[in-house]
Amino acid sequence: MTYTYFDHNATTPVDDAVFEAMLPYFKKEFGNASSRHVLGMAARRAVNEAREQVAGAVGVQPSQVIFTSGGSEANNLFIQGAAGYLKPGRIIVSSVEHPCVMRTAQELARNAYAKWNLRRLAVDGLGRVDLADVDSAMLEQQPGQRQSALVSAMLANNETGVIQDVGAIAEKARACGAWVHTDAVQAFGKIPVDFASLKVHAITLSAHKIYGPKGAAALIMDKRMSLKPLIYGGGHENGLRSGTENVPAIVGFGVACGLAKTRVAESGARLLAMRERLEQGLIGMGAVIFGRGAPRLPNTCYFALPGIEGDTLVVRLDKAGFAVASGAACSSVNPGRSHVLEAMGVDPMLTRCAVRISLGSSNSMAQVEKFLKALGKVTEELRRMSMMTV
Amino acid sequence: MTYTYFDHNATTPVDDAVFEAMLPYFKKEFGNASSRHVLGMAARRAVNEAREQVAGAVGVQPSQVIFTSGGSEANNLFIQGAAGYLKPGRIIVSSVEHPCVMRTAQELARNAYAKWNLRRLAVDGLGRVDLADVDSAMLEQQPGQRQSALVSAMLANNETGVIQDVGAIAEKARACGAWVHTDAVQAFGKIPVDFASLKVHAITLSAHKIYGPKGAAALIMDKRMSLKPLIYGGGHENGLRSGTENVPAIVGFGVACGLAKTRVAESGARLLAMRERLEQGLIGMGAVIFGRGAPRLPNTCYFALPGIEGDTLVVRLDKAGFAVASGAACSSVNPGRSHVLEAMGVDPMLTRCAVRISLGSSNSMAQVEKFLKALGKVTEELRRMSMMTV
Ligand SMILES: Cc1ncc(COP(=O)(O)O)c(C=O)c1O
Ligand SMILES: Cc1ncc(COP(=O)(O)O)c(C=O)c1O
Repeated sequence: MTYTYFDHNATTPVDDAVFEAMLPYFKKEFGNASSRHVLGMAARRAVNEAREQVAGAVGVQPSQVIFTSGGSEANNLFIQGAAGYLKPGRIIVSSVEHPCVMRTAQELARNAYAKWNLRRLAVDGLGRVDLADVDSAMLEQQPGQRQSALVSAMLANNETGVIQDVGAIAEKARACGAWVHTDAVQAFGKIPVDFASLKVHAITLSAHKIYGPKGAAALIMDKRMSLKPLIYGGGHENGLRSGTENVPAIVGFGVACGLAKTRVAESGARLLAMRERLEQGLIGMGAVIFGRGAPRLPNTCYFALPGIEGDTLVVRLDKAGFAVASGAACSSVNPGRSHVLEAMGVDPMLTRCAVRISLGSSNSMAQVEKFLKALGKVTEELRRMSMMTV
Repeated sequence: MTYTYFDHNATTPVDDAVFEAMLPYFKKEFGNASSRHVLGMAARRAVNEAREQVAGAVGVQPSQVIFTSGGSEANNLFIQGAAGYLKPGRIIVSSVEHPCVMRTAQELARNAYAKWNLRRLAVDGLGRVDLADVDSAMLEQQPGQRQSALVSAMLANNETGVIQDVGAIAEKARACGAWVHTDAVQAFGKIPVDFASLKVHAITLSAHKIYGPKGAAALIMDKRMSLKPLIYGGGHENGLRSGTENVPAIVGFGVACGLAKTRVAESGARLLAMRERLEQGLIGMGAVIFGRGAPRLPNTCYFALPGIEGDTLVVRLDKAGFAVASGAACSSVNPGRSHVLEAMGVDPMLTRCAVRISLGSSNSMAQVEKFLKALGKVTEELRRMSMMTV
């Protein structure tokens, strides 16, 4: 059986060119980038080149790139790192953030010693951050007091693919003196991401969502901002992230960033066409498409077939040869309800039916057509079964 | 020119078998271990198998293994994680710890909100923790008060290779109710490491020092201990370390752990013989060998040729085809004086001459002989040059 991968928001295969670039750094050029002999210096050069590639992909200076082990670490580094540097104040996040932003923010608000106040930004029915609520949140500051404030609003959501107007949010937040961050893990490699246009102080990028390897990601930051490190030690990454650099993964990340730029330019229309065909088919089968109508990543389709559990569908489709994701499973080893759909006000019964398809470079229109056929068969079977048990 | 790598304490090349085991997980079995389709489940199985291999290597249950991105992260997770869980008390570390333990401990002692008291354990002239000072440190607790205490003492030092009597330290610390950790990053794969015999609550292991890949390490912990996570998010690693698992690196770590057991058994004597020849040659040239006389890792030789700067020697030897390390360069991108030699009471003038050779699986006696010849030539040249400039 051929197997079709429709789960690119969860992770992607490593691109051939990325893989080839990484290979020498496992056995031949295996040096520690902090060593002062030729093997160490070769590793250092490789890391520096990758730093330039990553910086170039979002229009910043290489010195603004802090390499981390993953997107979760980078998001934690921003939130905990900025909170550790500032006086306790307010942490403001959109209500559809990934758990690695949301839980980190919640943790700040639970801290016994330096308690931050957590404020969630409301989203509308399509999953867009309500800009009026951003205004309200900013005004909630104690009058006369100039409290420190951290704001984190993701550029694109991992479940719905909905794209936020981060520039507008950042302007409002900056006007109140807040430090603003955006988690661009899902957006990067799918739509153009430019640091300056986002008007934020920091963004998070990750390699394994853009056909790079697991184990490399970055927090890109405005150099006027200061952070407390999350991991202390030898003083790597300008003192902000200690630990021997994962050279092969960082090299792969750099190459993947180069490819991402071309991919965004070339594949957007192709992905959109496939997604449109997919959604027409789904709507024909009675599906609800979450976030349809809002600006979305071209590759993401988050839908529900009323009455058919998402988890069941994932298992059935897997057996039929299609890898898709249910609800929030993508982001958690302890999947529960999707807090994203909840924030959007979706009926809990429908939330349980949520399934995400995220297209990628290897997918074709033929696969979409086959998928729709397979889905038709599976849902018919499931409906027949549930009729029998009634 | 052939190039000889004598810097295995800094990092090691990935073993062929490890590399082969990792390869499928980049492009073919690239799934996210949290995904519930076949690709995700294959990744989860691979992570679980690696967890068993790592656990087996040190005699613990797989559920005691928390995978992290590196040794620095694992050490930070223990110290910050335990400190975050307990009431502020005392943090007691040996004075020869790696910066990722030392600086993390210092940071706890600087915390504005929850201040810990830092106590460094003295070492003797050979770099061994003074057990009498452990007793003193334990007694320094305010009488009548039962303060929480964290103790971290490394199993083997990265610079000197000196092995500590962690079992004895741990018994004394446990008697006072402390939580005890040992950084076994350098010891693991060079001497037998058994969790139970060390009598600690937690140990740190790392892949890239044992012919595994960069990007994977573990904190192994007693399940009766609780930690606050360092990285929050999807709840991976039993809620203690969130972030998409670096499947290829973890797989490689597992295989490297299996190989480490055999390597320790088979190569100890071979490494010792080479090291002994090396040190005889060095002593003949007037070198001081640090820690000689104390129990040491069989692969590590840390020496100084009085009057010859370590940094200069590293550069010259590199040109002559030998990769060695100077002072604390191995552990820092901002190398300074070695705090290890300082703690041992070594004359600062001699400290500047420190050079570390760390042997590994690819090294041979012939390389050692060649090295001694090359070193003889280099030192002669350097001595001649310094005579001229006087
Ligand atoms: C929006 C978003 N942010 C952050 C992350 C975290 O990335 P990782 O699990 O690789 O640390 C993810 C991955 O699921 C994501 O989708
Ligand atoms: C004793 C010891 N602990 C911890 C580490 C940290 O390991 P890493 O730099 O891979 O995070 C090292 C590496 O130099 C070490 O030698």
